[in-house]
Amino acid sequence: MPDTFDASDLKVIAFDVFGTVVDWHGGIAAEVERLLPGVDGGAFALAWRAGYQPAMKGVMARIAAGEGGFTLLDELHMGILGQVLAEFGVTDLDAARKKELNTAWHRLPAWPDAVDGLARLKRKYFITPLSNGNIGLLTEMAKRAGLPWDCVLSAEVFKAYKPDPRTYLGVAAVFDVTPGQVMLAAAHHDDLAAARGCGLRTGYIERPLEFGASRPKDVSAQAGNTLHARDIGVLADLLGC
Amino acid sequence: MPDTFDASDLKVIAFDVFGTVVDWHGGIAAEVERLLPGVDGGAFALAWRAGYQPAMKGVMARIAAGEGGFTLLDELHMGILGQVLAEFGVTDLDAARKKELNTAWHRLPAWPDAVDGLARLKRKYFITPLSNGNIGLLTEMAKRAGLPWDCVLSAEVFKAYKPDPRTYLGVAAVFDVTPGQVMLAAAHHDDLAAARGCGLRTGYIERPLEFGASRPKDVSAQAGNTLHARDIGVLADLLGC
Repeated sequence: MPDTFDASDLKVIAFDVFGTVVDWHGGIAAEVERLLPGVDGGAFALAWRAGYQPAMKGVMARIAAGEGGFTLLDELHMGILGQVLAEFGVTDLDAARKKELNTAWHRLPAWPDAVDGLARLKRKYFITPLSNGNIGLLTEMAKRAGLPWDCVLSAEVFKAYKPDPRTYLGVAAVFDVTPGQVMLAAAHHDDLAAARGCGLRTGYIERPLEFGASRPKDVSAQAGNTLHARDIGVLADLLGC
Repeated sequence: MPDTFDASDLKVIAFDVFGTVVDWHGGIAAEVERLLPGVDGGAFALAWRAGYQPAMKGVMARIAAGEGGFTLLDELHMGILGQVLAEFGVTDLDAARKKELNTAWHRLPAWPDAVDGLARLKRKYFITPLSNGNIGLLTEMAKRAGLPWDCVLSAEVFKAYKPDPRTYLGVAAVFDVTPGQVMLAAAHHDDLAAARGCGLRTGYIERPLEFGASRPKDVSAQAGNTLHARDIGVLADLLGC
């Protein structure tokens, strides 16, 4: 990483989505409580999300072993949902309502600063999601929440999930720019570290309530990130948008 | 194809782009005349475009033979450009200006009805390009011209060019809908026929001046299309948007 950062050389800002742009915990908890009255929505949301990393690792291991293809996040979510419903003792959900619940991930609310912050950044940069969510999920989410992406990039385009280098380097290739002309903005240091390892710029976005108001997250700055911003509006301020 | 068409069952409208949404002939001709003074821009545009179908077929044949991978349209355009420059006797274009000319395809102007028509359709449907152009090309074009896509689908996502069925069926899969819930809107009957063969609805868009004012195109209706519209605004009228 060069020590100097020239914002005028930056061309593209790619955003992690779940937690960074939208509130998955609050959105899933609300939908669970609407569709499964009596269930603790916050605990259900945490359990569902906890299955996500192991499910992706399972897919990548099967692909590496030549035993399967890339799997959309909607399908992974559905598989995890079956387990979480059983854990929570829900045994009577029919297929239509299970699908409605699974697509709660398409209907997550944007954090309050996201739409305006993205619109400001879009005036100067290409803005795109770079999420492990599938294209359909991200597109429906954007349409509902008003996220003004220039395009919708996803693990589905690159046939690999973050933190696979193909995803970060894939963004640079799509726009025919160098990795250093792309910034990943994310609320997760592991995602940012992987992007930095590929030569991208990184912007940390604080989301102290990502896991709910009762589980505040440490959002202190870590060395190595190009920028550290309280929210996407502040990122736009820092980049002079 | 069922004889009846219920617009309320339609979910997604996918648009061919070159010729249907943007004026490739006028845009390329103007950029050629700006960058190569003295060259006949209209003739150059026609020659460049004429190389496009053979170049794609060459790629698909090499992939089928296991001899190569999917190639972005930007690369195909660059290869054809080299031949067309030689045909037109241009031998002194440096690499930077050749690249600038090649990216003229990213800067094509929208037909006058396109931005407003798409914005109207977007209120009721998901709207996406389905083009053989690469994602970066389509995204830069959309940003410059103000095309309000919900996402950017491309041959690049499906690793196949139209009229391969993977492209048309891929749109339905992305949105988790049936092929009959997707309409392809295009100014080209061969594209529409291939989409129809996959079960999609089809909307023909008249673009009589696609090949320039001196070469008007027959735009009479052909049997089989679900809708026939003078332009994208009329398509929005027909769909009640």
